[in-house]
Amino acid sequence: MMKVLRLLSSSRNQFPTRGALSMHAYTHSTSFSTASKSFSVKGTSAHNVFASFDIFKGKAALSLNPVLPTFTKLESGNLVVSRRGVVMLKFTPAIGERRYDWEKKQVFALSATEVGSLISLGPKDSCEFFHDPSMKSSNAGQVRKSLSIKCHADGTGYLVSLTVVNNLLKTKENFIVPVTAAEFAVMKTACSFALPHIMGWDRLMSNMPSGVGRQQSNVGGQQSKVVPQLLDEWDR
Amino acid sequence: MMKVLRLLSSSRNQFPTRGALSMHAYTHSTSFSTASKSFSVKGTSAHNVFASFDIFKGKAALSLNPVLPTFTKLESGNLVVSRRGVVMLKFTPAIGERRYDWEKKQVFALSATEVGSLISLGPKDSCEFFHDPSMKSSNAGQVRKSLSIKCHADGTGYLVSLTVVNNLLKTKENFIVPVTAAEFAVMKTACSFALPHIMGWDRLMSNMPSGVGRQQSNVGGQQSKVVPQLLDEWDR
Amino acid sequence: MMKVLRLLSSSRNQFPTRGALSMHAYTHSTSFSTASKSFSVKGTSAHNVFASFDIFKGKAALSLNPVLPTFTKLESGNLVVSRRGVVMLKFTPAIGERRYDWEKKQVFALSATEVGSLISLGPKDSCEFFHDPSMKSSNAGQVRKSLSIKCHADGTGYLVSLTVVNNLLKTKENFIVPVTAAEFAVMKTACSFALPHIMGWDRLMSNMPSGVGRQQSNVGGQQSKVVPQLLDEWDR
Amino acid sequence: MMKVLRLLSSSRNQFPTRGALSMHAYTHSTSFSTASKSFSVKGTSAHNVFASFDIFKGKAALSLNPVLPTFTKLESGNLVVSRRGVVMLKFTPAIGERRYDWEKKQVFALSATEVGSLISLGPKDSCEFFHDPSMKSSNAGQVRKSLSIKCHADGTGYLVSLTVVNNLLKTKENFIVPVTAAEFAVMKTACSFALPHIMGWDRLMSNMPSGVGRQQSNVGGQQSKVVPQLLDEWDR
Repeated sequence: MMKVLRLLSSSRNQFPTRGALSMHAYTHSTSFSTASKSFSVKGTSAHNVFASFDIFKGKAALSLNPVLPTFTKLESGNLVVSRRGVVMLKFTPAIGERRYDWEKKQVFALSATEVGSLISLGPKDSCEFFHDPSMKSSNAGQVRKSLSIKCHADGTGYLVSLTVVNNLLKTKENFIVPVTAAEFAVMKTACSFALPHIMGWDRLMSNMPSGVGRQQSNVGGQQSKVVPQLLDEWDR
Repeated sequence: MMKVLRLLSSSRNQFPTRGALSMHAYTHSTSFSTASKSFSVKGTSAHNVFASFDIFKGKAALSLNPVLPTFTKLESGNLVVSRRGVVMLKFTPAIGERRYDWEKKQVFALSATEVGSLISLGPKDSCEFFHDPSMKSSNAGQVRKSLSIKCHADGTGYLVSLTVVNNLLKTKENFIVPVTAAEFAVMKTACSFALPHIMGWDRLMSNMPSGVGRQQSNVGGQQSKVVPQLLDEWDR
Repeated sequence: MMKVLRLLSSSRNQFPTRGALSMHAYTHSTSFSTASKSFSVKGTSAHNVFASFDIFKGKAALSLNPVLPTFTKLESGNLVVSRRGVVMLKFTPAIGERRYDWEKKQVFALSATEVGSLISLGPKDSCEFFHDPSMKSSNAGQVRKSLSIKCHADGTGYLVSLTVVNNLLKTKENFIVPVTAAEFAVMKTACSFALPHIMGWDRLMSNMPSGVGRQQSNVGGQQSKVVPQLLDEWDR
Repeated sequence: MMKVLRLLSSSRNQFPTRGALSMHAYTHSTSFSTASKSFSVKGTSAHNVFASFDIFKGKAALSLNPVLPTFTKLESGNLVVSRRGVVMLKFTPAIGERRYDWEKKQVFALSATEVGSLISLGPKDSCEFFHDPSMKSSNAGQVRKSLSIKCHADGTGYLVSLTVVNNLLKTKENFIVPVTAAEFAVMKTACSFALPHIMGWDRLMSNMPSGVGRQQSNVGGQQSKVVPQLLDEWDR
């Protein structure tokens, strides 16, 4: 099979719109990033980094952005995930050629399991997710979001669409972004990379010093104590 | 094929039980983490991070948690793995709706090779592992654990079950957790990420400074010496 | 199927040419790396690291090199990608046996999406990319580059070729490098590793301290504030 | 298909032999690690970390160990790979039950391309590599090593064997280690993880500060300068 990407055109689309989309990204990513503030060094505030993966198409733009989990410190000094990370999808409608109206954007936050579903999609697979943003509030059931990833019959890509039905505002919005196999490969690889991070597993790793050189003087060799209950399993 | 995840319900299940399960996690993970204490900076104790991947189902909950290896320092100053890392599986029985009894949990520690078996499972593959927690003790053979991962005929997921037969207590416990393809994809991706870390290979990497900027003044350019025996192979 | 790599010969090809090729790499990579200068510590300049993956063949050599994105600091102190990263392909024609003329090299910069296309290529897939280096300049359309990755019928490798047509200089250059399945596997694995980095997603990760030990005194446990608009989605 | 690993027995094999094998590992890994010495902090010597992946079987044991590349500092202060990294395979013959004679071990260093061949092997694929340790010396051709990875007909694993023919000593040694699909999955995952590191690409990444928090005061926003020659490609 022969894929031909005509980057000249796609690039032409991309740049004029970068500004609008990006400003959008900044505005909203900041709201996420307050989360990681809980880890910022006192006296200074960690900077936020914006590097969303943007797919600009005729009717709408789709942006992917990982959002890291936040941790709460227990009295023991241990850290526990207080808010799970997600991969945030942002849909922005096009207004005229190569212009997007970020005021009208809608977001859909993929959980770890939903990311797992996305990265395990084959070229002939499709999937659909349903969210109720107001779940567990008095407005539960009033707003309904559904994200659909439908494969093309010939396996050359997917149709990614978000539908938001708001019974309170009596509105129904729909976004459709065709995603090529190459663009989806980027989504899968980037999401696979992000998954352990939104799960917080990279922290479990970094819990031990990375870089013996820096730590050598602090390294002790004492036997570690493990409660018998677990020793049996761990010590096999 | 069309996968439909109804996250409203699954989410509803999840949260009421988070508390119980998590407390459980804290209590026991701390016993693992004493291991990495052998690397904590003197005068301070490294914090533990809890970020298990939890799958809550009707009859039981399954939690995954990587456990890093521990190293012992030789007189030469070199470090050798003293306890290999594992991916710990924790099964907790349900008691009533959305409630789990962590007092009755059972664990099963996957070795690197068992993790290799898990991440190489195809949608139509199954595997089974047997552990004797008391191996090499006087109670050898008295307790038998078997973990089974059985694929659904239609390849839409797996049935993960743990059986623990204890001849001393004359007890037999059984846990069954249905795992969707999406949840298993998370398990595979997270375990693939964790594998080099439980093997300690991330340490081999971090043995050289990561970040030239930080190290530049320490960087020497002298030719490295390698014993002939190995030079032949290494220097090809 | 049985693949036999005769490394004796391939190695013989490799070393005599290392020098020439490498000097080439140094000269030009420095021009890339000025980009990351924007992050160098004041008073010192970060060192550049050269570790291209080189494939030396009879008619030409192909070198792969990741080029990281650069970030611009906003007044807010936040960072935004100012120049996206790429995986740079460098083609160098052979002049006589095992000698390459780096003066005549040509480069082709793969974007994230083009890298996605490369890493998702099956053994029976092919793809082609078109670039106009002078796009958006007065010379737009005068120079045309096309990169073609064609699979062998038997799936044992690919033919990677670059064609550069320059209407201004009235020149047409063509480079052809046969790539074995093993060499392409390295390209795919290395590009998959590089992709999140050229997208800048590794930065999003590193936005939170990696290594609790180093940060413990700075860790605060306060709830993070998230604007309602997003809370609904993020907090599910 | 149903894989059953009986870890009781495999574990039983493993532990008695750990000691011998490990001592072996220490002795020789130290010779590799002198390489990374060129990066050790002056006044102190970086510690070496030993975490080989060991497969103990009836006739021989196979150990995998990544060996990082070394860099040489140019007058410009830039770093260039002086010795490429490898994944070192070590074969050790069994002497009696669960005992291995590390005095008789033989090593085979997989280059990046050979690692690419290994990680791209399908369950029905096989491959073979040939090395001449004395290549480019007066003894060229006198010693011949060949590594063969042959799949089982039923795709349940591989037969990994090393043959060393030494015309100088008039010796021919042969090592055979059956590797299960699960063990090979660990080899593939670990080698995929190691590949960018033995290529030195992790350094290219770490060339920019990882952790904005730590670097914020050093972050400048100036436009980066790129020579036109490359600007065209990079700036698309």
